[in-house]
Amino acid sequence: MRKFVYQFSEGSKDMKVLLGGKGANLAEMTNIGLPVPPGFTIGTDACKDYNENDQTLSEEIFEEVLTHLKLLEEKTGKQFGSNENPLLVSVRSGAPVSMPGMMDTILNLGLNDKAVQGMIHQTKDARSSLDSYRRFIQMFGDVVRGIPSYKFEEALSLIKKQKGYAQDTELTPDDLEKLITTYQELYLEHGSEPFPQDPLTQLRLAVQSVFDSWMNPRAVVYRRLNDIDPNFGTAVNIQAMVFGNTGNKSGTGIAFTRNPSTGEKAVFGEFLINAQGEDVVAGIRTPEDISKLKSHLPDAYHELMGTCELLENHYLDMQDIEFTIEKEKLFVLQTRNGKRTAQASVQVAVDLVHEGKISRDEAIKRIDTKQIDQLLHPTFEKKALEKGEVLATGLPASPGAASGKIYFDASEAVAAADLGQKVILVRNETSPEDIEGMAKSEAILTAHGGMTSHAAVVARGMGKCCVAGCSEIDINEKEKTIVTNSGITLREGDAVSLDGSTGKVYLGEILLTEAEIGGHFDELMEWVNEVKQLDIRVNADTPNDLLTAIHFGAEGIGLCRTEHMFFHEERIAYVRQMIVAESLEERKRALAHLKEMQKEDFIQLFRIAKGRPVNIRLLDPPLHEFLPKAEKDLERLAQDTGKTLAEIKKRVNELAESNPMLGHRGCRLAVTYPEIYKMQAEAIMESAVQIHDEGQKVFPEIMIPLVSSKEELAFVKQEIKESVQAIFDRERVLLPYDIGTMIEIPRACVTADEIAKEAQFFSFGTNDLTQLTYGFSRDDAGKFLPSYSERGILETDPFQTLDTAGVGALVEMAVSRGRMANPNMKMGVCGEHGGDPRSIHFFHKLGLKYVSCSPFRVPIARLAAAQVVLEEREQLQKV
Amino acid sequence: MRKFVYQFSEGSKDMKVLLGGKGANLAEMTNIGLPVPPGFTIGTDACKDYNENDQTLSEEIFEEVLTHLKLLEEKTGKQFGSNENPLLVSVRSGAPVSMPGMMDTILNLGLNDKAVQGMIHQTKDARSSLDSYRRFIQMFGDVVRGIPSYKFEEALSLIKKQKGYAQDTELTPDDLEKLITTYQELYLEHGSEPFPQDPLTQLRLAVQSVFDSWMNPRAVVYRRLNDIDPNFGTAVNIQAMVFGNTGNKSGTGIAFTRNPSTGEKAVFGEFLINAQGEDVVAGIRTPEDISKLKSHLPDAYHELMGTCELLENHYLDMQDIEFTIEKEKLFVLQTRNGKRTAQASVQVAVDLVHEGKISRDEAIKRIDTKQIDQLLHPTFEKKALEKGEVLATGLPASPGAASGKIYFDASEAVAAADLGQKVILVRNETSPEDIEGMAKSEAILTAHGGMTSHAAVVARGMGKCCVAGCSEIDINEKEKTIVTNSGITLREGDAVSLDGSTGKVYLGEILLTEAEIGGHFDELMEWVNEVKQLDIRVNADTPNDLLTAIHFGAEGIGLCRTEHMFFHEERIAYVRQMIVAESLEERKRALAHLKEMQKEDFIQLFRIAKGRPVNIRLLDPPLHEFLPKAEKDLERLAQDTGKTLAEIKKRVNELAESNPMLGHRGCRLAVTYPEIYKMQAEAIMESAVQIHDEGQKVFPEIMIPLVSSKEELAFVKQEIKESVQAIFDRERVLLPYDIGTMIEIPRACVTADEIAKEAQFFSFGTNDLTQLTYGFSRDDAGKFLPSYSERGILETDPFQTLDTAGVGALVEMAVSRGRMANPNMKMGVCGEHGGDPRSIHFFHKLGLKYVSCSPFRVPIARLAAAQVVLEEREQLQKV
Repeated sequence: MRKFVYQFSEGSKDMKVLLGGKGANLAEMTNIGLPVPPGFTIGTDACKDYNENDQTLSEEIFEEVLTHLKLLEEKTGKQFGSNENPLLVSVRSGAPVSMPGMMDTILNLGLNDKAVQGMIHQTKDARSSLDSYRRFIQMFGDVVRGIPSYKFEEALSLIKKQKGYAQDTELTPDDLEKLITTYQELYLEHGSEPFPQDPLTQLRLAVQSVFDSWMNPRAVVYRRLNDIDPNFGTAVNIQAMVFGNTGNKSGTGIAFTRNPSTGEKAVFGEFLINAQGEDVVAGIRTPEDISKLKSHLPDAYHELMGTCELLENHYLDMQDIEFTIEKEKLFVLQTRNGKRTAQASVQVAVDLVHEGKISRDEAIKRIDTKQIDQLLHPTFEKKALEKGEVLATGLPASPGAASGKIYFDASEAVAAADLGQKVILVRNETSPEDIEGMAKSEAILTAHGGMTSHAAVVARGMGKCCVAGCSEIDINEKEKTIVTNSGITLREGDAVSLDGSTGKVYLGEILLTEAEIGGHFDELMEWVNEVKQLDIRVNADTPNDLLTAIHFGAEGIGLCRTEHMFFHEERIAYVRQMIVAESLEERKRALAHLKEMQKEDFIQLFRIAKGRPVNIRLLDPPLHEFLPKAEKDLERLAQDTGKTLAEIKKRVNELAESNPMLGHRGCRLAVTYPEIYKMQAEAIMESAVQIHDEGQKVFPEIMIPLVSSKEELAFVKQEIKESVQAIFDRERVLLPYDIGTMIEIPRACVTADEIAKEAQFFSFGTNDLTQLTYGFSRDDAGKFLPSYSERGILETDPFQTLDTAGVGALVEMAVSRGRMANPNMKMGVCGEHGGDPRSIHFFHKLGLKYVSCSPFRVPIARLAAAQVVLEEREQLQKV
Repeated sequence: MRKFVYQFSEGSKDMKVLLGGKGANLAEMTNIGLPVPPGFTIGTDACKDYNENDQTLSEEIFEEVLTHLKLLEEKTGKQFGSNENPLLVSVRSGAPVSMPGMMDTILNLGLNDKAVQGMIHQTKDARSSLDSYRRFIQMFGDVVRGIPSYKFEEALSLIKKQKGYAQDTELTPDDLEKLITTYQELYLEHGSEPFPQDPLTQLRLAVQSVFDSWMNPRAVVYRRLNDIDPNFGTAVNIQAMVFGNTGNKSGTGIAFTRNPSTGEKAVFGEFLINAQGEDVVAGIRTPEDISKLKSHLPDAYHELMGTCELLENHYLDMQDIEFTIEKEKLFVLQTRNGKRTAQASVQVAVDLVHEGKISRDEAIKRIDTKQIDQLLHPTFEKKALEKGEVLATGLPASPGAASGKIYFDASEAVAAADLGQKVILVRNETSPEDIEGMAKSEAILTAHGGMTSHAAVVARGMGKCCVAGCSEIDINEKEKTIVTNSGITLREGDAVSLDGSTGKVYLGEILLTEAEIGGHFDELMEWVNEVKQLDIRVNADTPNDLLTAIHFGAEGIGLCRTEHMFFHEERIAYVRQMIVAESLEERKRALAHLKEMQKEDFIQLFRIAKGRPVNIRLLDPPLHEFLPKAEKDLERLAQDTGKTLAEIKKRVNELAESNPMLGHRGCRLAVTYPEIYKMQAEAIMESAVQIHDEGQKVFPEIMIPLVSSKEELAFVKQEIKESVQAIFDRERVLLPYDIGTMIEIPRACVTADEIAKEAQFFSFGTNDLTQLTYGFSRDDAGKFLPSYSERGILETDPFQTLDTAGVGALVEMAVSRGRMANPNMKMGVCGEHGGDPRSIHFFHKLGLKYVSCSPFRVPIARLAAAQVVLEEREQLQKV
């Protein structure tokens, strides 16, 4: 017989896949002797069994649950449904990977009309017992029968209004008994069945609901957003209840062993007196800082501090601990590695190294590349900020700064963001339904909830700015207004700016400035450099981009797109003259102007690069991209060139293409008009000579795009070499430089052994290669890729993460064939995958020399490049 | 020391690569005892040496020539430059592969002011000797110094006019002496040097000129058109002259051992009395039929007939023999396998099998697949022809029929053809400069020249209709007019029709009807079927195409493009309604109409196919291809669908794509709108069920286009299978059918092992695969491929002949990976390469099951498929 159910004492922290994260940690904590309420875990295998059998909970499994329930009754001395000493349990989901708030939890299960009397008998506290019962009915109705919570809330509000109560705590036992009756009627009305009085029926329904919640839409979206395997399934933890809502010596809270926002080494947390755990997370009441617990319940506080230290030393990472104090006795309900901001992530990891708890390698492994972005994001420009009008201040829930237009509804925020707007999502409090809206927004602002509210936790996970619990504003979600204390009213579409590090909300947009990094981050990145093998270069076309990238650790330019230099206003006229030229003479005249302009750019880049390699791609896009469309621009071009408007229009028409991506572009331009690349090669080498004459080092790499055959490369290369040699002869100098090719056409991969004979380097242009390998146009795929994702045909967007099975196989072929012909060939990547961590893993394993990415992704790429080395070492050790 | 020069007696017919075709045959003929004028051959190695040394004839080689010249003087008893008994030689090019008229020839070399006296002394014929001298100066001037022939012709015309002569033969020795002086003056004037009197200087210059002629532009074009290796080089044959222009007992001619136009077994040829060979080929005088030689010079005639038989039995193929009769003595100057029409090619090969001279396999090998087209080309519709007005009748120089607009200049013909016009090239006589114009024209009409004139030979080689020597019309190339005997004037752009099998020229266009094949052809094709291994299927969308193809031996449909059925006028309205539908319901209503229409088509195709496999590709092109552009069509669509014009325009805009080739098409349509393929699958299987109910066999193959991953195919296949199963369940029947995929995307090749798990067949769509592998759009590549060809970057158009190194390597990968997963998978080709002989060779070697091509290419494909088997067997025997 298969075993599906485990006592906490049977598990350990290494059994996450089977017991879920929560179950494994409850087991671990139980085993290291912490005060964990007793219980057991139904493993994820049972969830799989449930799904494989058309959402049916097998009798076999339920029998096993009952056996363990019996043990729990023995251990606690309580009995399910007893009117003297009833056993109440929590039923919580717990997946192998944390999905906070994504799935369902039921507390106080076991309460019924009889057991609530037993609870009163035990606790001598009718109010809190009855309150627990009415909460249970509400929660059970919501989770098991999908009865909207607001129905229950309405009934609660009604009775409070009738009695003139401000707080829930003012409700008398009588009020609560009436409320329980109303709740049971509501349940019958909306749930089509009476509220089940039998605790075992409650339990069975609750377990089924937890299993069902694995497939609920918000969980599915969350898994998709976070790359979580949908086959894991969830475990169910059944645990004896403890009660934080039994008076003023009771309470509940959350403690982080370090500050999850800054990384500071100090216990950080919040608690609510006389409350159950859900009250803290839901953000309905604003909790107090953990430090206040010390004066309130000093024993429990000190025990909690000790537990924090114990747990951190045990797990060797910052812990996020849920605790409840029942009549001064501390219970630990859960611990897990705490979610944290990027800044905290770096600081905690580096501090743990300094404290001798983990190694440098371990620190590197712990940083999530996805989070690094957050560190590098801009903050407000100081001077602009000084002029900023502060509307309100809330909690600094997730750092960073952002400006955008306010939207009060997640789906409207998504729609606006899809139209290209910068959006700030404004809600009284967020819930898992808002996930997609949060993902698409620049930042989140809430009026309710604390630093550990849903909005705060999720925003930190996303590396997104968040100001939470901003009680100085009044948010009306229906009217779509914010009214500030000072009486200012903002409406949908109005602009605000948020500073997630100070909690300040500003009126209007505020200029942003670049991120400042340093300290812990720099220290970590130095360790990264010692580990990584790939060079990280930058895709940069401007001095500014290059400066930023070098600041972030770029080791050269991997892709300078010369055509970006062609679009400058004062240049485009010459580009257009070059294109419409009807004779070689005419074309050369325009090219001569462009050459001087390009030289200015190259000289600047070479100066900043200080001898780092600068890879310059020669003209790539189809010529018609440069031609004007507006009548007046066409007329100007006619004037500039002395042609008639009709002639210009004819030429524009001639250059139009059915499929420009597959058309007359890249080195094909140089086959028909060799003088274009010759001009560019001259501009590059004359600039290099000038830098050399200034006594500086310079190393240009001339890259020929869109090569499909050796013959094509040989022809174009020969033309370029002649131009370069003429400069060397004239200037009586010889500079080192390389000529190589983009590998971005499938045929180039297949015939890489031939092409390698003509190339000094290969640079994989994985954007175009993905387009051609899939036959997907990036510009058009938006029409069908969403269906591919919905139907599970494509797991990830191949334009973001390299498709290793297809595109990757071609890259691999090109690498091995290229090396066959030229074993020492320099190979790198300049497509956007060069900044994607998963893709970087693949490129490292192919033994490439470098990847190149946008400036802000340079640190991410560095980190990913180090992590893959560590991963490899680990695998080697396992073998 | 390397040997560069060979006596005729040192060579044999197997030494073509070294001695050239002409040299090898002169050697062979010499060795079998035929009356060949003595001489020697400078091998192709010398040409290579010449080209490798910057067009310099090495002294070493020239020394060797002089040694052999000495031997020739001894053998003939004549001496170079002697004023008593001078040696005159011909200097002719001769490449390993025949390039008729492409390169240069010089006759009567050795004549100078002194030697001509020696010739007169010897021949006692001052007129013919002086005539030879003046011809030599003209030819030498033309070939060596590039002096235009018309300069010399003008001088000749002038003297004839002054003297009132009609024929060249009326010129007196005095006239000729004057003419020689004039010619030498012309030579000095235009050649910048005096005409060289030293025969050795003449010889050196002539040899150099022949070597130079290998690289002349028309030879380069000819090699490109005929796929001849440009590295072969040419040999030079130096041979003692014999003289057909020494009176009425002398003459020159050409004999084919069989009729090169029909293949009939009877010597066929032409001769001119008192003329040199060039007169026949150049078509300046119209020669007499060979049969007339019998009465004129009976001994020479009988010896010629004996020689024909001897040579055909020796070479076991129809021979094309050049002969000269000098004072009743027959000399054989050249023999080679005779160029022939497709019809003759088939008839000669089959007859030779019947005569027991060659095997069936040899017959198959001898048919040039390129020529087969000609046999299958249409002829005039009989009734239309009866009404046709005959303008004139010329020689039936190359069979077939064609209509088109007349052009008088090759480059204008090319320009008109490039604009899509059907063009007939009209010239007094054609020359090698006209090659490209001839290639682009439907047919060629000349006023001068015989059956062996340049126009006739080249047209037959191209499989193009030609009427030559049509002296009933007067062609004015300058005025661009034809004036007929009956006084009708035609101008550039007027339409005529030519029948190359009767020599008739008709006014206007005449309806064409399909080719009739049978007899010898059918017999040959039966032998072909016994040899070939590949099945040959047809790409057919209509009953007519399928009927034609089955008549030509197609073994099934390899590609039925369902979208072609969508364009019919009465259907397109429903297609458009389907596309602009905004709900599934709306879309399904339009699809229901289309389904009934598609069923009509499929039922017809299945009936004609009679159980042969019918491969139907589901909808492939982007939807916007079906949408209207004209305002009135947009309005109609708005009416049909009850939408506003603005809504329709919006939808049309939405569907526009930047790169439609890489856009929302193929199975991507079925991922977003599964109901489209479901409708098509239903139409196919309901049609199949109906055919089955009629008691006929039926075998549909459902082909899913543009698949890039296994998951994509699995999804679409599942949708289709459900639809098909529903029909089987409803109709209580089970029919065999296959579902498979096009392999036309590089990723599909790379992941073919995965895709094979979901496919019952692979059909390679080599058109799209070539586009994506090269990144070349077929619609746009016209802008740069010509440069690629000019610069030698691309040897052949990859859209015509499969690029085996790149695209072919991907096909090979897909085949081997596909077989790994599914060893018995059915694999074929449905791209246009399926009808290209060289590509068919490659597909056969991959062991594919079939190729599919357009109806008229089916016989070509069959032949190519047999030839590759024979080639393989030959290679196996060699091993």
